[in-house]
Amino acid sequence: MNEFRIDFEPVGRRVSIGPNETLLSAAQQAGIALTAVCGGVGVCGACKVRLVSGELSPFTETEKSVLPPDALEEGWRLACQAFPRSDLKIEIPPESLSSSQRLQTEGIAGDLSLSPAVTIQPFEIAKPDASDLRADWERFTSTFSRTLENDCAPLPVMSQFSNLMRDEDWQGQVIHHENGQIVGFLPKGKAVYGLAVDIGTTKMAAYLLNLETGEIVARKGEMNPQIAFGEDVVARIAYANQGESHRFELQKKLTDSLNGMIRELCYQVSVDVNQVSDLVIVGNTAMHHFFAGLPVRQLGQAPYVAAVGQALSFPANLVGLETAPNAQIYLPPNIAGYVGADHVAMLLASDISSLPGTAVALDIGTNTEISLSKDGRLVSCSCASGPAFEGAHIHAGMRAVPGAIERARFFNGEWHLATVDEEPPVGICGSGVLDIVSELLVSGQIDSAGRFTDRTTSRIPFKGGDAIELVPGERSGTGKPIIVTRQDIREIQLAKAAIRAGVDVLLSHTNTQPEEINHFIIAGAFGTYLSLESAIRIGMFPDLPRKRFQQIGNAAGTGARMMLLSMPSRRSAEKLLTRTIYIELTTDPAFTDLYVDAISFNS
Amino acid sequence: MNEFRIDFEPVGRRVSIGPNETLLSAAQQAGIALTAVCGGVGVCGACKVRLVSGELSPFTETEKSVLPPDALEEGWRLACQAFPRSDLKIEIPPESLSSSQRLQTEGIAGDLSLSPAVTIQPFEIAKPDASDLRADWERFTSTFSRTLENDCAPLPVMSQFSNLMRDEDWQGQVIHHENGQIVGFLPKGKAVYGLAVDIGTTKMAAYLLNLETGEIVARKGEMNPQIAFGEDVVARIAYANQGESHRFELQKKLTDSLNGMIRELCYQVSVDVNQVSDLVIVGNTAMHHFFAGLPVRQLGQAPYVAAVGQALSFPANLVGLETAPNAQIYLPPNIAGYVGADHVAMLLASDISSLPGTAVALDIGTNTEISLSKDGRLVSCSCASGPAFEGAHIHAGMRAVPGAIERARFFNGEWHLATVDEEPPVGICGSGVLDIVSELLVSGQIDSAGRFTDRTTSRIPFKGGDAIELVPGERSGTGKPIIVTRQDIREIQLAKAAIRAGVDVLLSHTNTQPEEINHFIIAGAFGTYLSLESAIRIGMFPDLPRKRFQQIGNAAGTGARMMLLSMPSRRSAEKLLTRTIYIELTTDPAFTDLYVDAISFNS
Repeated sequence: MNEFRIDFEPVGRRVSIGPNETLLSAAQQAGIALTAVCGGVGVCGACKVRLVSGELSPFTETEKSVLPPDALEEGWRLACQAFPRSDLKIEIPPESLSSSQRLQTEGIAGDLSLSPAVTIQPFEIAKPDASDLRADWERFTSTFSRTLENDCAPLPVMSQFSNLMRDEDWQGQVIHHENGQIVGFLPKGKAVYGLAVDIGTTKMAAYLLNLETGEIVARKGEMNPQIAFGEDVVARIAYANQGESHRFELQKKLTDSLNGMIRELCYQVSVDVNQVSDLVIVGNTAMHHFFAGLPVRQLGQAPYVAAVGQALSFPANLVGLETAPNAQIYLPPNIAGYVGADHVAMLLASDISSLPGTAVALDIGTNTEISLSKDGRLVSCSCASGPAFEGAHIHAGMRAVPGAIERARFFNGEWHLATVDEEPPVGICGSGVLDIVSELLVSGQIDSAGRFTDRTTSRIPFKGGDAIELVPGERSGTGKPIIVTRQDIREIQLAKAAIRAGVDVLLSHTNTQPEEINHFIIAGAFGTYLSLESAIRIGMFPDLPRKRFQQIGNAAGTGARMMLLSMPSRRSAEKLLTRTIYIELTTDPAFTDLYVDAISFNS
Repeated sequence: MNEFRIDFEPVGRRVSIGPNETLLSAAQQAGIALTAVCGGVGVCGACKVRLVSGELSPFTETEKSVLPPDALEEGWRLACQAFPRSDLKIEIPPESLSSSQRLQTEGIAGDLSLSPAVTIQPFEIAKPDASDLRADWERFTSTFSRTLENDCAPLPVMSQFSNLMRDEDWQGQVIHHENGQIVGFLPKGKAVYGLAVDIGTTKMAAYLLNLETGEIVARKGEMNPQIAFGEDVVARIAYANQGESHRFELQKKLTDSLNGMIRELCYQVSVDVNQVSDLVIVGNTAMHHFFAGLPVRQLGQAPYVAAVGQALSFPANLVGLETAPNAQIYLPPNIAGYVGADHVAMLLASDISSLPGTAVALDIGTNTEISLSKDGRLVSCSCASGPAFEGAHIHAGMRAVPGAIERARFFNGEWHLATVDEEPPVGICGSGVLDIVSELLVSGQIDSAGRFTDRTTSRIPFKGGDAIELVPGERSGTGKPIIVTRQDIREIQLAKAAIRAGVDVLLSHTNTQPEEINHFIIAGAFGTYLSLESAIRIGMFPDLPRKRFQQIGNAAGTGARMMLLSMPSRRSAEKLLTRTIYIELTTDPAFTDLYVDAISFNS
């Protein structure tokens, strides 16, 4: 029988299928978990993919009703509805992937010319004998007095020298940093590597890159170990304020975890930690301060200023990271107490300042940082959107781990749900709760104020204003029903209102109408995998042509990698800061009005 | 009854006594333990003191026989023989003090104009509010942009800033280092302090100085905690070579001890550790390397070179010392693998390069470092004199702790011994064994080859060549006899031969005759408290006029304090290095001959 070869991108998997198998089936055979909420009947739209090249079966009526006309034009299909007619190249967007596969996708990668902070130079020197008893280090500096003229070598570099020279027969390589310091020494033939890290409040992602080729050679994600001290930054700041030893404890949690990640990444690719010669680390202002050992007291009290805003560069050994002896850590600037270096990295990765017209870029979390770029200037703010989208403060809320409901559609009078890893449902994660509220609204089960209506199905009494039973106890993974309460809907209303009001404040400050936004860039884990349609329907995002939206994944990590590979990227990040006006929403007179306006589902 | 007031210097104690009480009795009443070997009968010469002002009873016949004529002329007396005739000022030389009081005496103190590395400057800045949300640190740097232009502030300094400003109402003082870095911040009105430390292989001495007045405000001595890993540097290097973790352990022992000393010194005078703003630390090359975290493997194998020779300056936090956040540690240069920064500090304190003519300066220990200054040049060497003078490798040897025999005289056919703290004798310390060998030689009980003779008293059989019974069991503190063996005498012969040959090599390299030495400077604990007469009699030192000898105490500590108070002193120390020729005795062809020559007591 005739078989066609299907290449899935960007995941890079390949299978062959017959003409009567759907793309959904092909993806499953390739080990790719697409979200299929409706079980492949074509009504949920969750399994959309894009045809890059090749020929598919014609659009079905279902596809025509579910996908907007411009999407059809661009080649978007529902994987459950499309059959191959030739060899194919198929793009899977991040939002169609199940959460368990999402960590594999990276933010957009800019085009970079490789110009890292460190360079490497081989050398050979004479060994000491009875006629030449100079100290080892003087032996090195006198041999290289010309090239080292402006170089300075800190103690840990000198410490590494003597034994290495004796072990390697008085030859090796010296790693120079462009700041004029020697970073360390390596045996002949060893390459230099760099580490880029995004320290999120919840998750950390680390990437090991070969600085001579620019290639990512290993990557690793891990939970932020500070979780044990509080889910959000406010709780952790409160803990740190109980005493300096608490703050040091939180710092040490991070550095211990990072050291473990460094060791593991190096082990994976047989690299010595001494080869890790440069680091770029990004995080929100609180994570930045915790990591760098800066005080956080002032982040917990008005007017919520950062201890340090400017970009920082310091030796990794100062914070106890195990790397090349004098590897430098670069931390990009913080814009404000609640707009940190991770947002700067995201802005850099999204290349926002080069985009023509008006662009909005945001990263949704407990705090949502938003920037608007227009006419070469940036305006930024941070709004307290709360932890609802991270699954907290939601009755059945949970993180996007196996069993979490991550997609929901309501049709034919019943709920169709997709869970992470297709495990029996045990709770609802952020993208799931967003879908549910959107579907409740579209199906008239809640009104514009978020109240249940007489069309609400599966309504059950619940303290504080009823609930709906999403999954009955007998079908849930825990044996207990999964419910969505009136309070859950209120949490989503407050969260989406904060985000929308934040966007609106920036529009108002720049005299911009929503429809003038040419680019609406959504970064971060939740932002990337949320259903755009749901977010627009509940009014969280303005209703712009879908082409103007871009969901770019962990762009903070991408920005960190760009700054690791390219010194001009660091200068761009620092320039961003000087061009940014920060608006403090808690004291902005327009914000409260816009926030109250945005709470209802009318807008 | 008529009483006279006696001022004892430099210990600074005062008593009143009648005309029939001796100076020895006066000293005892003042709580000063003079060594009185003969029990006050005037024959041992160990209680000599010098009349500075006032009138004493005439010289006794005993004094005239015991003290050389030039000593009588200079006002030297035996405290047990002299009675007051007026109020008096009396100088007690270190060698007349019992060991237990010796730590109180400091090396010579040069005249210094105060010019420390750090200066302090008060400031006040505006606090943040809703209209000014700059980060704390930008607030500081923008206010002081002019004065800070070339200043750089490392992370730990920034870390200290935010909380201090909030606690001190946005005013304080900034500590600048002359290297262009900010050292830290202090509340208004607090002074800056500095720490000078001499890390000896056996003992450590730390001094806290007010850097605005130059005054020593507190001092503390402690055993080197590395003792547990080996008595001498060779044993500790061997331990360190068993693995990097061993070397770090030895380093941590030092820094933990130093942190304890810093805390205690600060506590004594109500100073905050944040006020400790500058540090100078000296030690031999091995201690220097252990402290700084430099490798020591190459110190344990030929050709015994240092890892680093040049002067070093690095942040105290790099080695874990708790001080002002960016306090800098200055380590003077090392001359060679076995002539370290402590010797450089001693040379600085002795002002050897300014002395006219030829000067020899040495510090006796397991390794004895010797320098000779002539015609504006320095020649240095280090000889393995062994641990005999520290009480090791001597059958009944011990440190100068209570019960150690520290002075010995043989007259009227029997031994007269003085012990530390006048405790019952339990062993013999370095100065004691030196005296004993000298007395054995003078009384003809050993011959020029160090063999016992037929005039040897209290001779008893002992494996490997007999021994003498110095203290019978019934009079010793342990109940067992204290003996001196033929082997002990051999150890002293080898030690003195090494030192004398070291001096002779330097004389030979500079074409100098012994009698041309104008200054013979002996530093360090043992060197200061040894009996000069004994040392000359056994041939360890050349027989020069006594006035040319100077015993200067812990001159390494003094040198460290000088460098703490004065940047020009550091530059002088560094200049010393460039003017020094190091001679490696293990490969010097003349040394072995001179050494063999010096073993006999003929020379």
